[in-house]
Amino acid sequence: METMETYPIQVGSVTRRVPLHEPFPGVRIPLVDFLGDVEFVRAVAQELLPKLPEEAEILMTAETSSIPLTHEMAAARGMNYIVARKRRRPYMVDPIIQEVESLTLGAGEVLWLDRRHAERLLNKNVVLVMDVVASGGTMKALERMVSRAGGKVVGRMAGFHQGDLKLDIVTVAELPQL
Amino acid sequence: METMETYPIQVGSVTRRVPLHEPFPGVRIPLVDFLGDVEFVRAVAQELLPKLPEEAEILMTAETSSIPLTHEMAAARGMNYIVARKRRRPYMVDPIIQEVESLTLGAGEVLWLDRRHAERLLNKNVVLVMDVVASGGTMKALERMVSRAGGKVVGRMAGFHQGDLKLDIVTVAELPQL
Repeated sequence: METMETYPIQVGSVTRRVPLHEPFPGVRIPLVDFLGDVEFVRAVAQELLPKLPEEAEILMTAETSSIPLTHEMAAARGMNYIVARKRRRPYMVDPIIQEVESLTLGAGEVLWLDRRHAERLLNKNVVLVMDVVASGGTMKALERMVSRAGGKVVGRMAGFHQGDLKLDIVTVAELPQL
Repeated sequence: METMETYPIQVGSVTRRVPLHEPFPGVRIPLVDFLGDVEFVRAVAQELLPKLPEEAEILMTAETSSIPLTHEMAAARGMNYIVARKRRRPYMVDPIIQEVESLTLGAGEVLWLDRRHAERLLNKNVVLVMDVVASGGTMKALERMVSRAGGKVVGRMAGFHQGDLKLDIVTVAELPQL
């Protein structure tokens, strides 16, 4: 079996040796996994929660891998959260559709938010939550969605960031390029 | 604003009045929402957990809306879980690809499981978890994936089912066609 190089990620008292992913030749990125790892997600949530703005009323994220972290943070604070979808769902009525601007992809991804969920953002103080932020394109698209729905973004949080942070985002640690 | 008919769903002490979705003329289905509703997800998890087989070692689901329920159940039992994806992710290496058989759709959906996650199923007792089961096609595809990865399905659980249950699945309640 192929041996796989790994990189150690420590959050609080939890350590994971994660595999490296090579999206381009010569560029390797630690592959952090929030889906399915309850202990790790909780450790990240515990680091972010003390910095969650007090005025926050609801959390928002985009599917898929950021859902467990957002769920844990919402549960810890007795809040609910909203998930923007990456595909149109058959039951959506009058959804908000928001393109994700991307420098690397020609055609941007699109986020979908059913109107009945968009209505829950009206006049609310919203905190955006993601697992990993790289270019920030998805977070910017979420911010635009919240604004279009009449809500106000009062905070941006992510477990990790890759590269320079261009937005004001609270993160636990940087994932290096190796 | 359009008035929307709702249907009451009660789980334990939690009640939600959910909107009705009309996938075909004359057929209306309650639209239960597991994404974003922490209190409701926890109520469903509390109903299912006492029936979780004792020999279960890991849970498995498919993205997206079943993730919060699976996460809550795994957290309550100190387990981890595995999420089959509906799209190929760039970092996947030698993934298991499984078609979901569907009677209503011509082309079935496809589930993807990265090899490093598939390896976690080997010789494990696996419980499949979903939010809502209708035809059972996704659950059958998950079962086939587990089998191909060398695991053993020891239980199938879902929050709700629509129509007759063709598989042996533990659910909290039936969602009626209205």
